[in-house]
Amino acid sequence: MQDQPAAAFLIIGNEILSGRTQDTNLHYLANALTARGINLLEVRVVPDIEACIVKAIHALRQQYAYVFTSGGIGPTHDDITSNSIARAFGVKAVKHKEAWKMLEEHYRVSEYAFNAARQKMAMIPEGARLIPNPLSAAPGFIVENVYVMAGVPAIFQVMVDHVAAGLEGGAVLISRTICTDLPEGTIATELGGIQARHPDVQIGSYPSFERSERSVSIVLRHSDAILLAKAADAIIHMIRTAGGKVQER
Amino acid sequence: MQDQPAAAFLIIGNEILSGRTQDTNLHYLANALTARGINLLEVRVVPDIEACIVKAIHALRQQYAYVFTSGGIGPTHDDITSNSIARAFGVKAVKHKEAWKMLEEHYRVSEYAFNAARQKMAMIPEGARLIPNPLSAAPGFIVENVYVMAGVPAIFQVMVDHVAAGLEGGAVLISRTICTDLPEGTIATELGGIQARHPDVQIGSYPSFERSERSVSIVLRHSDAILLAKAADAIIHMIRTAGGKVQER
Repeated sequence: MQDQPAAAFLIIGNEILSGRTQDTNLHYLANALTARGINLLEVRVVPDIEACIVKAIHALRQQYAYVFTSGGIGPTHDDITSNSIARAFGVKAVKHKEAWKMLEEHYRVSEYAFNAARQKMAMIPEGARLIPNPLSAAPGFIVENVYVMAGVPAIFQVMVDHVAAGLEGGAVLISRTICTDLPEGTIATELGGIQARHPDVQIGSYPSFERSERSVSIVLRHSDAILLAKAADAIIHMIRTAGGKVQER
Repeated sequence: MQDQPAAAFLIIGNEILSGRTQDTNLHYLANALTARGINLLEVRVVPDIEACIVKAIHALRQQYAYVFTSGGIGPTHDDITSNSIARAFGVKAVKHKEAWKMLEEHYRVSEYAFNAARQKMAMIPEGARLIPNPLSAAPGFIVENVYVMAGVPAIFQVMVDHVAAGLEGGAVLISRTICTDLPEGTIATELGGIQARHPDVQIGSYPSFERSERSVSIVLRHSDAILLAKAADAIIHMIRTAGGKVQER
């Protein structure tokens, strides 16, 4: 894990905190970063309040190689992300010529006017680079190591795909999942021993209560397939010795 | 919102950060707190690393009336929440008599032994009170204003229900949702004006791209139904004047 750049994700939105909306962007971003060899180490969710956004950006951008955000870049009064990011960087949100052109173009062939509210979506922190939005034109943007993206999942996802392709990642972790019918408590001590003997392999144990208390998934992660196989073999042997069934996913 | 206690939620788990698991506990907790008149103001997700958990607990417990956590209270080596919470409070995780009894009882009538790994689940920060677990016995616990619960959704949910019933909340926000076929940008300026004239009512605008770019949900929240109705009426009138359709959800 040491040779992977570390990342944080800041979700901006009252609707997540109130329970109105089930966030799915974290799950999408997490998988994209994992595939890229980037280690997502912290996530925060904050409301649409400038002081909260600024404080979180200050904390995260110092600490992580990459910071991603979702939400608050639309045309309405509760879309305050651009101004908040500008404030966090001590710059102003200004009319971005390229963003303006993208939006102007989009609304030229639309039934809707490029009015003041929509023009607001071209106000971007000074010096930022754009993240294109092929779905509804309003771009995301990048300031230093902070990647600002839309909250609407369909738009967030195309932005993540666009951005991730250009990110420098580290070693990509390979993952193996071993399932067993033995309950966690039965294998926990042995599994802890295997973790201790394979300290570099990340081993997680996840009981599934959906089917029964007795179904456990053990997930192993490392960039080296051979090290991974050694730890996996040890776990499979341990489960069989304890009388359990093994299934790989 | 001012008369609501503020809360934070700390999700502990590598599986959320790697993208293996889609978190659903935040959504459940958020709705439970909203129903109770408690204002969830921040969420963090951290990995199964003691230093990360301790740091987050330090930051959150000073700042919020309530802190809830999920994950890491099982029997395996990656379940380090109890020790980490103890560390954050400067106490030790010790054998909790009542927790021990609950687990002993549970395993007496089970086909599984109450072995060392399962006994670990009775090690609770000194002075903590228990949160019962009717599904698999291993309890959650409460230290001061920090409520430590399981990560498995079925168990998390019964723990939240149990805990929420005893929490002191503030005014419960009533919520109204007005949907329209007009796109956000068309009504944004007017909507901002209505927000400015009803500053106490929380008004959020959420475009839905699932069906079409033209579907927007406007969510209003306040504890006072009359204030809420005034703002809602203004929005409905504004949408109709702009030639839009209105549907309440």
